[in-house]
Amino acid sequence: MSQLFTGLSAFPLTPADGDGVVDTAMLGILVERLVAAGVDSIGLLGSTGIYAYLDRTQRRRAVAAAIEAADGRVPLIVGIGALRTSWAIDLAHDAEQAGASGLLLAPVSYAALTDGEAAAHYRAVAGTTPLPLCIYNNPGTTNFSFSDALIGELAALPGIAAIKMPLPAGEDYAGELARLRATTPEAFAIGYSGDWGAAPSLLAGGDAWYSVIAGLLPEPALRLTRAAQNDDSDEAAAIDAAFSPLWSLFKAHGSLRLMYAIASRLSLPIGDPPLPIMRVGADILAAVETALDHLGACQAN
Amino acid sequence: MSQLFTGLSAFPLTPADGDGVVDTAMLGILVERLVAAGVDSIGLLGSTGIYAYLDRTQRRRAVAAAIEAADGRVPLIVGIGALRTSWAIDLAHDAEQAGASGLLLAPVSYAALTDGEAAAHYRAVAGTTPLPLCIYNNPGTTNFSFSDALIGELAALPGIAAIKMPLPAGEDYAGELARLRATTPEAFAIGYSGDWGAAPSLLAGGDAWYSVIAGLLPEPALRLTRAAQNDDSDEAAAIDAAFSPLWSLFKAHGSLRLMYAIASRLSLPIGDPPLPIMRVGADILAAVETALDHLGACQAN
Repeated sequence: MSQLFTGLSAFPLTPADGDGVVDTAMLGILVERLVAAGVDSIGLLGSTGIYAYLDRTQRRRAVAAAIEAADGRVPLIVGIGALRTSWAIDLAHDAEQAGASGLLLAPVSYAALTDGEAAAHYRAVAGTTPLPLCIYNNPGTTNFSFSDALIGELAALPGIAAIKMPLPAGEDYAGELARLRATTPEAFAIGYSGDWGAAPSLLAGGDAWYSVIAGLLPEPALRLTRAAQNDDSDEAAAIDAAFSPLWSLFKAHGSLRLMYAIASRLSLPIGDPPLPIMRVGADILAAVETALDHLGACQAN
Repeated sequence: MSQLFTGLSAFPLTPADGDGVVDTAMLGILVERLVAAGVDSIGLLGSTGIYAYLDRTQRRRAVAAAIEAADGRVPLIVGIGALRTSWAIDLAHDAEQAGASGLLLAPVSYAALTDGEAAAHYRAVAGTTPLPLCIYNNPGTTNFSFSDALIGELAALPGIAAIKMPLPAGEDYAGELARLRATTPEAFAIGYSGDWGAAPSLLAGGDAWYSVIAGLLPEPALRLTRAAQNDDSDEAAAIDAAFSPLWSLFKAHGSLRLMYAIASRLSLPIGDPPLPIMRVGADILAAVETALDHLGACQAN
């Protein structure tokens, strides 16, 4: 099993100004918080890391700043999704040269992709870099759905080491993992995103939690991960329950908007989300505060 | 009624190399073909004009080349869709300075947009330029669906002059047009994209056909438009029937891939689509040839 794609991968926001210029000092502070907490990896430039809203120059600046801040203490997995294969290859080279440990590639699309086109895209990018690559399966934002057969085909390619799955319909984690394990190599790591599915997916044998909330609240996310990894389902369920008001807000308003609200409550000056994405209103901000209090109160017990 | 957003708007491909560098000479040739045919407007950098796959520099080069080729004989409507509001504003200014007559703005999204965010995006862009703006309603590629209420709200803004609609569910053009006319100003133009809906939508009173096929085959598309505008439903239906094998291929393989195949059959050296989008195989190319023969044979009658 690829160690890089195992355990808790925390996805920080990427602080940037209204023109999309990254605040590298603030990004370094966010990364330092994750390193200090002891997360297993940092997922830089994921969806909540607003990779889609940053140009190549800014993405390069973000990677350099995060690598410098992590200083070899925690490996970085860098998102390189882009509409053109040539752009994704450029971003892979940039991340490799900056010192990333792995890559995360979403099949971003405008015109809908065929399975053959998506496969060629992954083959081209994986073939251009020695870094291990994680498939970013995120149909909600990419408009592309992976079949089990396509995942099996890609998992057989050298360089493709892992997949980041969305939460399965019907929440049948065990069934989906069994199905995917049957068509992928033993060393292929299968992890989940969708924070409210973290506890059940890890308990069902998922290899990793690709976590949005861990980008700002790494400690409780790490405790949840370790409890599940130790098969302590009671403890995992208790921490999951402490998070549940936050999960409800994530589902209602979108993870990205909620993370900016949480950063505000934590007094982390990370700037605004990229317009047209807006900050949530005062009522939701109040609900975020209540949810954070709930989490804190549960933690204190 | 805004004349600019009325009649046949032809959307050329944007010839480019594998790195996304636009072939401005070839784009000029494509534009000249449209001007010579007498289309009512040219829709530059639409979805089949691969705007999503071109960076700002290349989009600027494309607009300059097309403006030069059109030489004031046909107005240009330029696509300025971008994920960030600031980017769309930059592209609006670029198009305005180059001499575009109007703008086409799609609510491109990665994180799903709320209605309020989309409205603010349109308000910001429309407020930054004197050019009239057409709403590009294309949920299949943008992941955003406009409600009638939001269209009504945007249509009331100064500068927002038109909407390019997708084909309505159930093909109830008359019903949809009546509904939209009731909530939009009299001068607001409502046109359709989805080439196989051109004849019925124009006959039902649609103001414009935003046409993919007219980008390469402007003459028969113009005949269809004029027949429908003259309420000659028999003639419009006959031309639509001549196109129908092409429409079937569009639906099966996507307009973008099909347009590259048609360009090949017309011996227009426009380069390849942007990878990961691929050219269709020989079997589909053969079907395209048959469909073009069918169209030609019908035209000759």
